[in-house]
Amino acid sequence: MLEAAILTIGDELLEGKLDTNSAWLGVELDRIGWRVREVRHCRDEVADIQRNLDELSTLCPLVITTGGLGPTTDDLTTLAVARWSGTVLALHEATWEQIQQRFAARGLDLPASNIKQAHYPAGATPLVNREGSAVGYLVEKDGRLVASFPGVPREMKRMVEEELFPLLRDRFPRDEYRAIRALRIFGHTESGVNKRLDGLVDGIAGAQIAYLVSFPEVRVFLKVNRADAVEADRVAAELAAEARRRLGDRVYGQDDDTLESVVGALLAKLELRLAVAESCTGGMIASRITDVAGSSAYFDEGVVTYSNAAKVRRLGITTELIESHGAVSDEVCAAMLEGLLTQTGADVGIAVTGIAGPGGGTSEKPVGLVYIAWGDLEGHDVRAFHFGSLKRDDIRKLAATTGLDLLRRFLLGRLGSAG
Amino acid sequence: MLEAAILTIGDELLEGKLDTNSAWLGVELDRIGWRVREVRHCRDEVADIQRNLDELSTLCPLVITTGGLGPTTDDLTTLAVARWSGTVLALHEATWEQIQQRFAARGLDLPASNIKQAHYPAGATPLVNREGSAVGYLVEKDGRLVASFPGVPREMKRMVEEELFPLLRDRFPRDEYRAIRALRIFGHTESGVNKRLDGLVDGIAGAQIAYLVSFPEVRVFLKVNRADAVEADRVAAELAAEARRRLGDRVYGQDDDTLESVVGALLAKLELRLAVAESCTGGMIASRITDVAGSSAYFDEGVVTYSNAAKVRRLGITTELIESHGAVSDEVCAAMLEGLLTQTGADVGIAVTGIAGPGGGTSEKPVGLVYIAWGDLEGHDVRAFHFGSLKRDDIRKLAATTGLDLLRRFLLGRLGSAG
Repeated sequence: MLEAAILTIGDELLEGKLDTNSAWLGVELDRIGWRVREVRHCRDEVADIQRNLDELSTLCPLVITTGGLGPTTDDLTTLAVARWSGTVLALHEATWEQIQQRFAARGLDLPASNIKQAHYPAGATPLVNREGSAVGYLVEKDGRLVASFPGVPREMKRMVEEELFPLLRDRFPRDEYRAIRALRIFGHTESGVNKRLDGLVDGIAGAQIAYLVSFPEVRVFLKVNRADAVEADRVAAELAAEARRRLGDRVYGQDDDTLESVVGALLAKLELRLAVAESCTGGMIASRITDVAGSSAYFDEGVVTYSNAAKVRRLGITTELIESHGAVSDEVCAAMLEGLLTQTGADVGIAVTGIAGPGGGTSEKPVGLVYIAWGDLEGHDVRAFHFGSLKRDDIRKLAATTGLDLLRRFLLGRLGSAG
Repeated sequence: MLEAAILTIGDELLEGKLDTNSAWLGVELDRIGWRVREVRHCRDEVADIQRNLDELSTLCPLVITTGGLGPTTDDLTTLAVARWSGTVLALHEATWEQIQQRFAARGLDLPASNIKQAHYPAGATPLVNREGSAVGYLVEKDGRLVASFPGVPREMKRMVEEELFPLLRDRFPRDEYRAIRALRIFGHTESGVNKRLDGLVDGIAGAQIAYLVSFPEVRVFLKVNRADAVEADRVAAELAAEARRRLGDRVYGQDDDTLESVVGALLAKLELRLAVAESCTGGMIASRITDVAGSSAYFDEGVVTYSNAAKVRRLGITTELIESHGAVSDEVCAAMLEGLLTQTGADVGIAVTGIAGPGGGTSEKPVGLVYIAWGDLEGHDVRAFHFGSLKRDDIRKLAATTGLDLLRRFLLGRLGSAG
């Protein structure tokens, strides 16, 4: 399998800035059949960049760099790449023309330092950036490639997809095709998924499974390499179908689905409108639902009834009910859902009340106790969950995810009985 | 300055898993006066781990590894560290005792493979893990140190703080003390902050500034190295005071403050209760407010009035007002705040309505137009913002942050007039 290395450049990456570029590149390179062997972050120092290019290009035929291509004196990637390739910096006339035009079109003065951005290592192939001004390029030495991109994720991603990947396909024609199916799962741990998929790819040539945990969800990647593209795709589809059979409705989606986009699509299909009433999740469910563009088509409203007064005012719950059972109780949670649906006229709803901690727990009702109610006025349910082994943030996150997932299963049932 | 390198180990880090360990280590090592020279992620392969240990320990006197310490056959860090140090694996009796006791206490059968976790490279110094079962250790060769930790962030962080840092302080006694002040800023870009702090540390011995951008906020680190601890601290405090003077109330907090924790503290201090009404931010403000433990003391409720019907129902806005001005308008936003405060009896509020896109924009009211109202019934304000250059996610995030920040400034004014 072809191997690539990634070098992300910039002092900030050594001082607390999270690197998201290499994670994205890891997934996308894998998708087109390249294995990432190693990732490195180094400082804005010519010698460090050059040493890493030397070491990584010895390990792998392709090195991708991000960062260090701007107009300031800190930006030293181009100089280091030129030194690595044993060449000099050369002005690229067409690029310089473009930069001048861009500034002129905006009526801006062009700082003299910007001519730096029109210099590539001599002999480099320019890679066009349609999202910004920093350029990118591909340089070759002794059959090893270094491809350099700006550090801004939006710019880097578009350039990699539109400029680099087509070049790689031409340069490294594949004798095999790779098909990938990604499944998204909620409700099993990684080891639970692992156990259920045990033996799935045994004896199937060129097939592999990989897992990626992103609490509280698990993603499974089914990868098939075959000489024939149609065959690879057929086998991957079969594996995905078998994995779905084994995992049942814990598989909520695939590829770029999110729980909220899947719930949104079900609501749209069933032509139902949603309302949510949240206490301990404090707006996380509403926020996730409205993350999805177009959610106004099916999302009516959310109420974050954090105080007891708000529960009484917004959901028509009696203070007696709260006093006799407590705000975190089966009875109050059911009443929250009923009040919500009655008052809003929404078709379906989710209600959550719980103790996220760290304070507020008792021996009878400990931190981590969460009640979730879901459904419609004709048929709804309440369930208690015990998330006490987790911290506040994770209790809230898991409660919100569980609420969305319970609604998803309810809507699937509706779809089944409607169909 | 002392330099460290970080090696995070695990196939998942090359296949899309975000590495948060090295970002955290970068900040914490800097805080105690160590500069991170390089970060690497490598696969679960003994040869790759060992090669990286060789290269990194040549570069830096300290290499920190995370990951690869579990009981499974994938976990190869310990073997690689032993090979790097030219020693063998040895059973650490006390650790093995502890693992056996932990399983016995829970009434669990102990899998035979777990004995692997009680093996260290011979001569290693164990580092205690109080959060989990994977062990850690420190190994020395020719004056170079390798410190290995589990990959689980919670376990790694506690072990680094409680076990590694005291050892480093003993081992590398400092001839200088480092004082750091971190300021958190909203309302200036990085270059805006940079310009205002121009020359701040000029001529001040041992003083440095660093910036960290986390959209839409900027953090500034003021670092002072001096032989005398009191002196370092005094200079850092003076620099922070001068930076605050130059940046004014755009500095919302310091160190681990968040905008929501600062707003919460102000509400608690002023004994005011908050309610929020959100449309395009869809619950993000309520969710952030309730991220803070103890927020029930000052947060009353949130309403996510996504539909016009919800705005009418929950906030007492007339359909006529919406029809004549549109749901995204100065008039409706002000009415949302007034309705919210009237209906809830909360002391202060935030109301947001806008077009997050990508659909729903018109030439008159384009995507990115956001109205925010804030204050109390006696004194409130509405302002229009144009966030059209951003994507949906960032428009929502910036709108929520702006709303919180406007309330913060309002509360500061209240505090000023009360004091």
